[in-house]
Amino acid sequence: MNGLSVEGEVRERRRRADGERSRRTILDTAARLATVEGIDGLSIGRLVDAIGMSKSGVYAHFRSKEELQLATIAAAQEVFDADIVDPALEVENGLPRLEVLCERFLSHVERLVFPGGCFFASVAAELDTRPGPVRDRIAEVQSDWTKLIASAIREAKRRDELDPDTSVKQLTFEINAVLAQANTEFLLHRDRAAFNQARRAIHDRLQALAARPRRRRRT
Amino acid sequence: MNGLSVEGEVRERRRRADGERSRRTILDTAARLATVEGIDGLSIGRLVDAIGMSKSGVYAHFRSKEELQLATIAAAQEVFDADIVDPALEVENGLPRLEVLCERFLSHVERLVFPGGCFFASVAAELDTRPGPVRDRIAEVQSDWTKLIASAIREAKRRDELDPDTSVKQLTFEINAVLAQANTEFLLHRDRAAFNQARRAIHDRLQALAARPRRRRRT
Repeated sequence: MNGLSVEGEVRERRRRADGERSRRTILDTAARLATVEGIDGLSIGRLVDAIGMSKSGVYAHFRSKEELQLATIAAAQEVFDADIVDPALEVENGLPRLEVLCERFLSHVERLVFPGGCFFASVAAELDTRPGPVRDRIAEVQSDWTKLIASAIREAKRRDELDPDTSVKQLTFEINAVLAQANTEFLLHRDRAAFNQARRAIHDRLQALAARPRRRRRT
Repeated sequence: MNGLSVEGEVRERRRRADGERSRRTILDTAARLATVEGIDGLSIGRLVDAIGMSKSGVYAHFRSKEELQLATIAAAQEVFDADIVDPALEVENGLPRLEVLCERFLSHVERLVFPGGCFFASVAAELDTRPGPVRDRIAEVQSDWTKLIASAIREAKRRDELDPDTSVKQLTFEINAVLAQANTEFLLHRDRAAFNQARRAIHDRLQALAARPRRRRRT
């Protein structure tokens, strides 16, 4: 098309596929590096060293450090969604989804999908005091995650899986707290016990808030 | 002493006091900077810019970046101890001490004693994947804090303030989780609601684990 011959079309398609592949390579490396060395250290020069691509090769994809950082966050979010969110969206909203979200998150950290654990916890800790579009994007991703947990809790109340007096905000805070703590402790002490402590904390909390069978409520 | 005249002694004492003051200035600035820009970015060059001291002036105190980083951690720990640990050690061990530890920690973060919130959470998140003596020191400080919380819980069980079946490790994990989450959420969203959510979580957890009065246990 655009007057290209069949051969020209094939070449053009290959060129685009190569471009897409090299962009992927850059972003995968960038996301992994960001969880170890920080997203702020993610200069184009640092990536050139890590991938062994030419500076102009990286510049062809990202014109500035900020553009590279935002694209890295988007790439990390794709990984996070595919590994944690999508499997949870396949089960019913309410307690079943809440449990999958928590379990997939813990498994994601334990499998070290990113070498620095949860990408967003890592980058949030780094950028929390540095205003700008990169930090804002991280805060948005965190808010979306919080909304997903809150929605599952709200639905669990509606389905009588949790006590109707349960505070959605409070329980969301508590669940996020233990998930984040498992990530922190595992990374700092390399002790897998943190995962079971998180599981037990969530289990105990949900048990305590489980809706009592209606017939017993009358008493 | 050492054959110094009285005037010589006074000069020597002044020189030492000046040295101590400039070391303090360097470390205070370093600790604050570390919670914003990271402890790894804490080069002697960066400090020279921030304090406006000569490079040789800073080098007179710290001969390497690692020496500077370890001294910065020690300085941050002094601040942390004076602000959080010492007031808690003044009250009885058990629930009273546990409550002061939690309350002082939350207040420490809220008052932004360090601009990046909890110094140790900030630096731990940065260094968790980077082995070395600086990271080891941070892990030790975190372990000391955990032991302090655990000791208060253990004593609370002994004093019948908490159910004797309470798992010290599990409750320590849960309390640390909500304290850390208050720090994280406050820094990322600048929302003070996180402090009250942490207070409520701790209060609810301690209530649920409160030792039942002995006479009721028989039933």
